[in-house]
Amino acid sequence: MKINIGVSNRHVHLKKDDLEVLFGEGYELTKARDLTQPGMYASAEKVTIKTEKDQIGNVRVLGPARNYTQVEISKTDAFKLGLKPPIRTSGDLEGSSPITIIGPKGELQLEQGCIIANRHIHISEEDAKKYGFENDQIVSVKVDTEKGGIFDHVHIKISKEAFLELHVDTDDGNGFLISSDTMGEILDHE
Amino acid sequence: MKINIGVSNRHVHLKKDDLEVLFGEGYELTKARDLTQPGMYASAEKVTIKTEKDQIGNVRVLGPARNYTQVEISKTDAFKLGLKPPIRTSGDLEGSSPITIIGPKGELQLEQGCIIANRHIHISEEDAKKYGFENDQIVSVKVDTEKGGIFDHVHIKISKEAFLELHVDTDDGNGFLISSDTMGEILDHE
Repeated sequence: MKINIGVSNRHVHLKKDDLEVLFGEGYELTKARDLTQPGMYASAEKVTIKTEKDQIGNVRVLGPARNYTQVEISKTDAFKLGLKPPIRTSGDLEGSSPITIIGPKGELQLEQGCIIANRHIHISEEDAKKYGFENDQIVSVKVDTEKGGIFDHVHIKISKEAFLELHVDTDDGNGFLISSDTMGEILDHE
Repeated sequence: MKINIGVSNRHVHLKKDDLEVLFGEGYELTKARDLTQPGMYASAEKVTIKTEKDQIGNVRVLGPARNYTQVEISKTDAFKLGLKPPIRTSGDLEGSSPITIIGPKGELQLEQGCIIANRHIHISEEDAKKYGFENDQIVSVKVDTEKGGIFDHVHIKISKEAFLELHVDTDDGNGFLISSDTMGEILDHE
């Protein structure tokens, strides 16, 4: 079963209150580009993420606003920032790493909120039923590039509406030389 | 078959003439730390690697001097520098990417010499015979971490003396969360 692959660069999700802390009262995100998942977009807004050790600027805010604030980085970023974030599903932030987010109008010192996203496959309820996947099921995906291999520990993430796609971070994307037209293959699962 | 894993950060190998261009006539490398491969060491010397687009400082020179000058970077570095280096075995530099190396006493504008190293396993002649490997044979290695999987396209590299070890770049190392005590397993091969 073939599947598209999206490589996610470091990014931030914000809840409405935190968006206003960073960008000002009543601020709304500006859509810059639709993402492949229905309703999701890259905003024009960028922030700086900061720790005691270092900082990274120009980190994109994704929209729309969520009901939690979350920073997703790669292990490479984590070394630079001196963090050891857990590998997590979006929104599962208990015990995740502290981080400061700096916007043009203010900053947020988060006691937790920074994670390395687990590898995951977005799939619609309809496709999940059709292909026999359950939510949070773990699968493996083979990628046949010049420096490819198999990604294990890939989480199935079912949404009502979804574009069928594997999401990996930039370490995985660059390690396996994944480009915009690289396809993966979901391996047989029990 | 279990195997140690070494993650190689970006680095430079220099031939004697080029070492002298960068560091001065008669210059010799200073050993900072032995590497796992017999005779190889990280030197105290660092250079800057540069392209028209960007540059990266503090790039370690490995010793001893070789009979070719070569810059090994990751795909992440390649994006930063605006290069598209080929995936290569050390020393196979025909058609590799141009790059400038800057040292304290001079600089080298190389028309070729920058590669992304292929994944490879160092193995001694004795071990290769014992385990049935041929030089440049391609194998796969499984890595069982929280974000692990399988590396395909791993080249067997036989030397008279060698410490048995898989070498991957920082993209692969960080993508698979490889730390100093992570072991790999060479999968069955034909």
